[in-house]
Amino acid sequence: MNTDNPNFPKPNLKTLSLIPENQETPIHFLRTWITLEKYFYRRNHFSYPRLTSQAFSLPVAGEVDRNLIFSYDYLRSMNSRAITMTLECSGNRRSYFDPKTYGEQWEDGAISQGVWRGVPLKDLLVAAGLKNSAKEVVFVGYDYGKREDMEGTFNYARSLPLDKATDSDTIVAYELNGKPIPFEQGFPLRLVVPGWYGMASVKWLKQVTVINHDFKGPYQDVDYVYYPHKDSDEGKRPVTTIKTDSIIQQPLNYSILDTGTHKIQGVAWTGTGTITEVELSFNKGHSWLRAELEQDFRNTYSWTFWSYKWDVQDSGEYNIMCRARDSTGYVQPAEAEWNRKGYGYNAIYTINVKVE
Amino acid sequence: MNTDNPNFPKPNLKTLSLIPENQETPIHFLRTWITLEKYFYRRNHFSYPRLTSQAFSLPVAGEVDRNLIFSYDYLRSMNSRAITMTLECSGNRRSYFDPKTYGEQWEDGAISQGVWRGVPLKDLLVAAGLKNSAKEVVFVGYDYGKREDMEGTFNYARSLPLDKATDSDTIVAYELNGKPIPFEQGFPLRLVVPGWYGMASVKWLKQVTVINHDFKGPYQDVDYVYYPHKDSDEGKRPVTTIKTDSIIQQPLNYSILDTGTHKIQGVAWTGTGTITEVELSFNKGHSWLRAELEQDFRNTYSWTFWSYKWDVQDSGEYNIMCRARDSTGYVQPAEAEWNRKGYGYNAIYTINVKVE
Repeated sequence: MNTDNPNFPKPNLKTLSLIPENQETPIHFLRTWITLEKYFYRRNHFSYPRLTSQAFSLPVAGEVDRNLIFSYDYLRSMNSRAITMTLECSGNRRSYFDPKTYGEQWEDGAISQGVWRGVPLKDLLVAAGLKNSAKEVVFVGYDYGKREDMEGTFNYARSLPLDKATDSDTIVAYELNGKPIPFEQGFPLRLVVPGWYGMASVKWLKQVTVINHDFKGPYQDVDYVYYPHKDSDEGKRPVTTIKTDSIIQQPLNYSILDTGTHKIQGVAWTGTGTITEVELSFNKGHSWLRAELEQDFRNTYSWTFWSYKWDVQDSGEYNIMCRARDSTGYVQPAEAEWNRKGYGYNAIYTINVKVE
Repeated sequence: MNTDNPNFPKPNLKTLSLIPENQETPIHFLRTWITLEKYFYRRNHFSYPRLTSQAFSLPVAGEVDRNLIFSYDYLRSMNSRAITMTLECSGNRRSYFDPKTYGEQWEDGAISQGVWRGVPLKDLLVAAGLKNSAKEVVFVGYDYGKREDMEGTFNYARSLPLDKATDSDTIVAYELNGKPIPFEQGFPLRLVVPGWYGMASVKWLKQVTVINHDFKGPYQDVDYVYYPHKDSDEGKRPVTTIKTDSIIQQPLNYSILDTGTHKIQGVAWTGTGTITEVELSFNKGHSWLRAELEQDFRNTYSWTFWSYKWDVQDSGEYNIMCRARDSTGYVQPAEAEWNRKGYGYNAIYTINVKVE
């Protein structure tokens, strides 16, 4: 559908909260390789930060041979890397967990795709000189505020283990889709960690610090942790890579269709390898049919649109499921792994439609 | 919250479908007496109609002494009536029915409020002269299209019984909130039927016809009918007046709050009389506490904002319910009356929040 036509009704970001701003991409109405700025999902922990000129300098310090400060202009003059990637909030699809979990009730749209350009973080770390004692790299954002569960004020901060921090695809980005990063997406500098859920990609990047121990900030060690049990922290483990997942974009759940041929359409994505197959079931999972993939296979981190021509002549109620398989052989499960804070939901997608 | 500040994040209409355009008001983020045009919910059966100059003339015909054609300019010169009223789609809150029902999965936002100005329909009917044989009045809109369940093309059309058609509050409107009606809301002329669900308020009004029998168009006799049973039409009855209902706007369901004092806020409305009481329960309905009403009691058809100061010192999970009572003594039920097409959901509103 041509959403550029000015007379054509437009979809909107779906509002979940305004302070902080949390809004979903209208993913069911978009089949664009790149998500436009106005449709790019927004997920914040705090009110937007007020930035000063300081935000155009990035200090790199800690367990390094020499503390360095990279200016925005200098970063833009360095060798850069552009990565087309799916960015997904680890709370995406949280609203489907049963039992329900607390937090923003994201449906399917805490996900967008863009081309991020920036400097490999590795190049900055090499310039500063990593000491042997280096274990993790901590990233602090300019955004800060209070938490419900502890006293005090916290900046948003996350760490990466050294191997992920020095992966040549982990970048300090200054551009999204060929333009300076929009303010809501972390202008002027954002850490971008392909393949990991969005919490790792720290917006409004203020400071990079190499440390010789495990980082224990609340957005690392309290939030963004899978807790398998409701009442104990046993078995907790950090949220990292994006789980293989897929959704049906059209038709919509509980919609009413005419008999005839319908194009069932959707999107699939993964933080591990690439999507190799999307299958549909019309009999509650007893058998599966292959959908057609439209992926650009050169891109590891990007999503895959898929479609299936469905010819239906009999009126009645239909159940339609979709599941994706990635290049490691992993297939979306029938049930998502429940966890107390509701991260990483990726169960087989199911809709019901009525044909009249 | 001051949503006029340009730096403040904005809520959006929530997109359910684009052809036809169906979008919800972000009702949880609005506490304005009048809903701005950009936040007014949109509910259509078809693509938007293309209008010609003919749309500025309204024929009144059928069981009348003389056929008349009222021009837009002439209508604007007649005695007018302005009515502040809640307009609600009968499918509002459909997504909460259990078992689920097919059709647009409206959450809470298929509802808006505005000031409609126009000419009492009664004055047009009196001018044309109602014959004794008159039984119903049929209203045809310029919008048309196909249906999934029958062959052919249909204009959207509805009827009113004579008593409702000649109620002095039933108007042929030409203004919304002091300006010509926005195109998406039925410009140039819209039938506006206060107290009834939105399906009665025919947009892009094309023709008024008085008939001597029951009207049987599909939007009257197939849709907008309560069918209490899944597999039979037994007990079917037409959808008419807006059921007494209320929702909690803030806090949001499954949100996480700090200990302290929170303002619980919501809105209540009814198609019958006025809202006299809104009550909250914190113990799953065992006992109820009165909320404070902010209604302008001069207006029969308008909604009521309410609030309640909740002081909570203990962390834990809380269940909060709200229910409204109207001036006939009717109280929102614990369960909505299930019906096959999912109209008129008005069960007690329930949220769960976690206090940390």
